[in-house]
Amino acid sequence: MNLLNETIKSISDLDKETSILTEKRVDNLIKPKGSLGRLEDLAIQLSGITGSVINDFSNKSIIVMSSDHGVYEEGVAPDPQEITAMQTPNFARGITGVCALANQSKADVIIVDVGVNSDEVFDGVLDRKIRKGTSNMAKGPAMSKMEAVQSLEIGIDVVNNEIKKGKKLIGIGEMGISNTTASAAIISVFGEFDPSDIVGVGAGLPESKLEHKANIIKKAISINNPDNKDGIDVLSKVGGFEIGAMAGVILGAAAKNIPIVIDGFISYAACLIAINLNQNVKKYLIPSHHSAERGAKKALELLGLEPYFDLKLRLGEGSGAAIAFNFVEAASFVLKDMITFEEADMK
Amino acid sequence: MNLLNETIKSISDLDKETSILTEKRVDNLIKPKGSLGRLEDLAIQLSGITGSVINDFSNKSIIVMSSDHGVYEEGVAPDPQEITAMQTPNFARGITGVCALANQSKADVIIVDVGVNSDEVFDGVLDRKIRKGTSNMAKGPAMSKMEAVQSLEIGIDVVNNEIKKGKKLIGIGEMGISNTTASAAIISVFGEFDPSDIVGVGAGLPESKLEHKANIIKKAISINNPDNKDGIDVLSKVGGFEIGAMAGVILGAAAKNIPIVIDGFISYAACLIAINLNQNVKKYLIPSHHSAERGAKKALELLGLEPYFDLKLRLGEGSGAAIAFNFVEAASFVLKDMITFEEADMK
Repeated sequence: MNLLNETIKSISDLDKETSILTEKRVDNLIKPKGSLGRLEDLAIQLSGITGSVINDFSNKSIIVMSSDHGVYEEGVAPDPQEITAMQTPNFARGITGVCALANQSKADVIIVDVGVNSDEVFDGVLDRKIRKGTSNMAKGPAMSKMEAVQSLEIGIDVVNNEIKKGKKLIGIGEMGISNTTASAAIISVFGEFDPSDIVGVGAGLPESKLEHKANIIKKAISINNPDNKDGIDVLSKVGGFEIGAMAGVILGAAAKNIPIVIDGFISYAACLIAINLNQNVKKYLIPSHHSAERGAKKALELLGLEPYFDLKLRLGEGSGAAIAFNFVEAASFVLKDMITFEEADMK
Repeated sequence: MNLLNETIKSISDLDKETSILTEKRVDNLIKPKGSLGRLEDLAIQLSGITGSVINDFSNKSIIVMSSDHGVYEEGVAPDPQEITAMQTPNFARGITGVCALANQSKADVIIVDVGVNSDEVFDGVLDRKIRKGTSNMAKGPAMSKMEAVQSLEIGIDVVNNEIKKGKKLIGIGEMGISNTTASAAIISVFGEFDPSDIVGVGAGLPESKLEHKANIIKKAISINNPDNKDGIDVLSKVGGFEIGAMAGVILGAAAKNIPIVIDGFISYAACLIAINLNQNVKKYLIPSHHSAERGAKKALELLGLEPYFDLKLRLGEGSGAAIAFNFVEAASFVLKDMITFEEADMK
């Protein structure tokens, strides 16, 4: 609890002075004012986060949190739960989607087992298992409050280690059969949405089962009565270990002035938990793609985030974050490599 | 004319056999089917273009065509015409927006003077000047048909040289004060649109001058009566040297089975010219961003292209293409680095 509290306390506002300096420079670069659009806003945000006008984000990681969900037994996922355990070591083997995309954007992929339903210790996977999957939220809380705090602190600890190794940019991803159900529940609770408007097909649930998925979430919310003023309460009652750990990564990175690139639908749920614990967190978040999940639009509105691209991705894993690293670097290259009208002797 | 005709004749359909092989592999990679969305379609398109399932696009260039426009004298641009001549050598100095973005995506930038209104020979700029800017299209044809063919052949020649140097991926960009006017004219002619629905603010024209810009285009179209069944006629009457040269790059790359990443509004006009000369060209085009110019949506509908991202860019230069190179490489990395369920022993 100490690590969590200290981390939350040390998340500050962005560096206003550096933001102003950066905005001035961006406005004076040799281009029509504003012509680089949202890349200019991103450059200013990044400088406000790091406190430097010029940044080098080449050293970076995607942290992938993997876990299982008790609510799986309600028939909310199209795939067998074993897929989580089968796929988790594949991140260490470098053969999953996010690995390929991280190779393109030259990022490391860190895979963490926070609650995979398996006794196996996977080669190359950080073993931080809380237990073998959450409890079924349709019957009671997914986890205890202590476990919720534990999941957050695992995320903080893992990202702190990455930062110690010199990482300047962090992306988040996940693996976990049924985690769109937990995420839809979290988003419904924070936004006070009808779960029927939020649930989507995830990895490929038949449309005909969507109402069942929504009903399970409604049941979980009604049984557990999560308090949306209390992020830890929401996480413990209808969350997941990987979602808590992703929220922890967000908090830990923000506390160290490191920008965090988020991914899709599960990320949105993790962001809501993290922002509930400290509102400043929002300023450190870099959106990536527009998740193809049905409730994504409402979740993004709730977060006040507008993604940079839409490739109709619905893989998860951090795949969108890996691609978006290129946008972050593009924004940093604009500040590093362009010069001002004065410097170019054009004015 | 020989180079142009031979190039047009050698643009073939995509390699269907490789496309089918690639689609099969994409469907069997260790991920839910279709979960990488448009990146999967892009991977299949790229393989159909090159004829190989696995591709390496690390060696690549953005070709920036620079030229001036006689229609400038009608007061359709917010900036002095001298900006074209001042900015052109800055591409060779590596300090413009596209240079910074190409540094991020590790692409070369080739800058070509096809008609800058200046007697200066710029260091590091390919000198392929046709003449010092087009004629004023509001008073007669922008260029002769011979000059139109010449601009196309310059583009073909420049891209052929890049391909000879081993480039596997080509992006297009441009510099030229008033070139949104010529582009809006071309788009209006091909789409039979009212120019008032197509003109935009370009680099920053006051909204109050938009109707004037549209009226100049209407006048140019009415005086010259371009035939939208004949791309060379349209190019010569209401086009620009850089637009013709960009269309030439497209044709030349397509003829050599090289994918072409397009940029924004001016690119859309160049694409329309190139497609008019050979319909197969369309299959070789990779869209990048959604231009912020007002007529962009209609132009993209006309082309049947859906951009991958929207950063509200309105710089031109090839800035969006430079960013989109990352998407092309991401798609190629998916095929290169992911493995199938069979290969992973998961099925």
